[in-house]
Amino acid sequence: MCFGVTEPDNGVDTSRLKTFAKKDGKRYLVNGRKVWISNAKNADRILLLTRTSPRNPERPFDGMTLFLTQLKGKKGVEINAIDKIMRNAVDSNEVVFEDFEVFEHEIVGEEGKGFRCLIDGLNPERIAVAYTAIGLGRGALNLAVQYAKDRIVFDRPIGKNQAVAHPLADSWIRLEAADLMTQKAARLFDEGKPCGPEANAAKFLGSEAGFEAADRAMQFHGGFSMSTEYHVSRFWMETRLLKIAPISQQMVLNFISDKVLGLPKSY
Amino acid sequence: MCFGVTEPDNGVDTSRLKTFAKKDGKRYLVNGRKVWISNAKNADRILLLTRTSPRNPERPFDGMTLFLTQLKGKKGVEINAIDKIMRNAVDSNEVVFEDFEVFEHEIVGEEGKGFRCLIDGLNPERIAVAYTAIGLGRGALNLAVQYAKDRIVFDRPIGKNQAVAHPLADSWIRLEAADLMTQKAARLFDEGKPCGPEANAAKFLGSEAGFEAADRAMQFHGGFSMSTEYHVSRFWMETRLLKIAPISQQMVLNFISDKVLGLPKSY
Amino acid sequence: MCFGVTEPDNGVDTSRLKTFAKKDGKRYLVNGRKVWISNAKNADRILLLTRTSPRNPERPFDGMTLFLTQLKGKKGVEINAIDKIMRNAVDSNEVVFEDFEVFEHEIVGEEGKGFRCLIDGLNPERIAVAYTAIGLGRGALNLAVQYAKDRIVFDRPIGKNQAVAHPLADSWIRLEAADLMTQKAARLFDEGKPCGPEANAAKFLGSEAGFEAADRAMQFHGGFSMSTEYHVSRFWMETRLLKIAPISQQMVLNFISDKVLGLPKSY
Amino acid sequence: MCFGVTEPDNGVDTSRLKTFAKKDGKRYLVNGRKVWISNAKNADRILLLTRTSPRNPERPFDGMTLFLTQLKGKKGVEINAIDKIMRNAVDSNEVVFEDFEVFEHEIVGEEGKGFRCLIDGLNPERIAVAYTAIGLGRGALNLAVQYAKDRIVFDRPIGKNQAVAHPLADSWIRLEAADLMTQKAARLFDEGKPCGPEANAAKFLGSEAGFEAADRAMQFHGGFSMSTEYHVSRFWMETRLLKIAPISQQMVLNFISDKVLGLPKSY
Repeated sequence: MCFGVTEPDNGVDTSRLKTFAKKDGKRYLVNGRKVWISNAKNADRILLLTRTSPRNPERPFDGMTLFLTQLKGKKGVEINAIDKIMRNAVDSNEVVFEDFEVFEHEIVGEEGKGFRCLIDGLNPERIAVAYTAIGLGRGALNLAVQYAKDRIVFDRPIGKNQAVAHPLADSWIRLEAADLMTQKAARLFDEGKPCGPEANAAKFLGSEAGFEAADRAMQFHGGFSMSTEYHVSRFWMETRLLKIAPISQQMVLNFISDKVLGLPKSY
Repeated sequence: MCFGVTEPDNGVDTSRLKTFAKKDGKRYLVNGRKVWISNAKNADRILLLTRTSPRNPERPFDGMTLFLTQLKGKKGVEINAIDKIMRNAVDSNEVVFEDFEVFEHEIVGEEGKGFRCLIDGLNPERIAVAYTAIGLGRGALNLAVQYAKDRIVFDRPIGKNQAVAHPLADSWIRLEAADLMTQKAARLFDEGKPCGPEANAAKFLGSEAGFEAADRAMQFHGGFSMSTEYHVSRFWMETRLLKIAPISQQMVLNFISDKVLGLPKSY
Repeated sequence: MCFGVTEPDNGVDTSRLKTFAKKDGKRYLVNGRKVWISNAKNADRILLLTRTSPRNPERPFDGMTLFLTQLKGKKGVEINAIDKIMRNAVDSNEVVFEDFEVFEHEIVGEEGKGFRCLIDGLNPERIAVAYTAIGLGRGALNLAVQYAKDRIVFDRPIGKNQAVAHPLADSWIRLEAADLMTQKAARLFDEGKPCGPEANAAKFLGSEAGFEAADRAMQFHGGFSMSTEYHVSRFWMETRLLKIAPISQQMVLNFISDKVLGLPKSY
Repeated sequence: MCFGVTEPDNGVDTSRLKTFAKKDGKRYLVNGRKVWISNAKNADRILLLTRTSPRNPERPFDGMTLFLTQLKGKKGVEINAIDKIMRNAVDSNEVVFEDFEVFEHEIVGEEGKGFRCLIDGLNPERIAVAYTAIGLGRGALNLAVQYAKDRIVFDRPIGKNQAVAHPLADSWIRLEAADLMTQKAARLFDEGKPCGPEANAAKFLGSEAGFEAADRAMQFHGGFSMSTEYHVSRFWMETRLLKIAPISQQMVLNFISDKVLGLPKSY
């Protein structure tokens, strides 16, 4: 499976997506360009968000339609892997559609209501990403703690220095706190309750604590952090992305300011 | 009631306290000087930690004895309020003992084992202080959010600026996370389970988030933050203390490095 | 002398000031309310900014006039000291004018062009405040370094702990850097060259480094920081104000974004 | 040319290096292993630091000797490139010596006094690295500012958001301050004056400001930061190393605590 939402020009404003599925009898012809589509090189099928009517500024999120359709081996689509610095366990791709055929019976939900289906998945994605970041952060922290015990400089393990030990202790605390927030969000979601603030807070805290732990692991590994033989740089790069995607730290703060604190929208 | 532990010269190293209760039949005569004793001006009784035998470097925490004794109206004690910048709801005092009489039947626990009784109270104190800080932080955050909605500069509420809104949203997230950690510590304590890492982490996160919220409330109140008429500076001063007492942020990190991560002790 | 610009309702938007000097022959009658006027209780004279014509949204900074006039002993003015948490070496006041008389020959520059005279003084004020903050920060750093050498806990000076020593070293570095920026701004100003970015950067770095040094001095003095007997809390409160006044850190960043980086104005 | 100092086991404690040049008539035979040797694959010659007598704990920096000798095409040396995440403009290598021949007339300075020659080069290296970091930081800042002007989301350039603009303005300020400190260090060095504190402070501030600018450039490029097509990740990786090498931020703080503030050594 892969998931086709992001486009090069709209950023976080999903209402601006331009990939269009034009009706032609029972089929639709899709034209447009998606980017950062994970796993498209291997996916059999794609869950694809398109416009089926032009953007209406008064109801900008209407008029989008979600299709679940075959991708592999189908005509009208070109998949180009993006050369990137990390996350090479899964390919990231530009996917270009040119008269790509999809069908009425492949619509998920209703025509024109695709965005609503999509947003149901945003909170669990944030929860899952929070745990990705926390897990990566703990992996990095474990590497750093072990190295701090083993590495001897000036006749003593470097972990005897507070300049090494305290940042690691601080990371332990922050990863635990992020974990508790993620548990809370997941529990609320499982109970079918609203969990927007908690899921966003979990993503915010998890990716921050995860990256910080990895960045500290880099620092305390010294020059060896740059060698691919030590895996610490992988944690560092992987966690960095999670402060950006699937939602940036800045958009989380916009959400909390607006929806929780009731401050006037800034944009 | 008041609680007499801290002395001017020993800092966080309680084993170094010098107030000595010298046995004299069934009574003991106490000599020494305590400092930062909250509420001593009003307290009827004091829970007083003393040495009853000199410090043995191999068992430094043995030889201390805890007494619960009358304070008000008794001879041999002088109580001087400390002039301080905050926390004026309760007095802080220097308490000087000169041949202050306490009795064998007033010993809490066993003679020489007073420190053990004391440490049972440290985790709940940290939990309580975490909530003090979180509550103060939320008080300050509420003031700041309201002010950000009401204060109009350049024809719009200042809360429409991300430079104001985002730090407030960030404080909301961190106060929630500190709250979850404090709940976890309290739940473990109530269940009679070990809760040292959680109680310390709660104190660390709560006092940090609480002070940060108050400091941001100061910043966004502008010059008015300096006026005693606005109460924001009270939150700011009260929360500042909680990063220092009853245990400093640095000693929390020492505890976590040593007891949780297993790093070699730094001091 | 004192300086009468700030009013309670306009914040940093000086164009919104409401104190009005209405012409009446060769005299003007001033009505309005100023706030945070330093030294007004002792000042013989005031440099007073008023509107002499209503705000024109297209040229909002025109129509303001600056007067240098007698204050002490004159009718039509009431001066009320503000109760505040710090800076008690100089009084801060609310100053209320009711038909306060000023004269044509007391105008500084031209009628209606008072704001232009004012802004000539903004950069040197920022430079002076940067040095105030740096000096206070160094005072606090010196106290903290001395205390870190003298205070013995766990049989060694607390300054032997990197958790104490490194933040102090970091403050030394940042105070030096702020000093270099302030020197650059002052040199440019003395040479009659534009120095807006440098003067703003100096205020930003100086007040940040100064407060941070004072806040660290508080932390490392432990509970004693709260006692007025130790003077560390005075450095802490005094430096805190300088992140707010005479211009907030946020407005400095707006200035740099807009004037130096050429980013679109955010408000 | 290349420069052979670092070894895998000694970290920042150069006195512990193990590569030994054993005298054998007018020649010496070198055995040992160096790591992170830049440019060794292309270098004709190497400036090589060895021990010529064993480490004496009372004078640990004596007994090291510096040789300037042919490397390319010589017997007794094996050069293995390290696979690394960045800095691919120059190779980094492990260099293994097995009975590698060097000669008495190739000694730089005196036998046994090689470390003294070496330390003369440390301050200018820090100054050069500070400027490397500042230049990289400015490159990243320029990319980010341009992107913030061009990238339209929610119908406006993202640079109109203070959450984007303010961190960029903050980076501009900190890069300028680091530049002034580096200029000061360079000027002192050129005048033959002591410049240790300033050269260390320059490295500290430059690498911090440089990396922070690059990290912000990553954040504001969103997902595109991960693509190698955008060059922002190169700035990010290159600057990260400079917080570690040639001296870590933590060792800079040790130097300032000890040599400038006079605090007791922590290790």
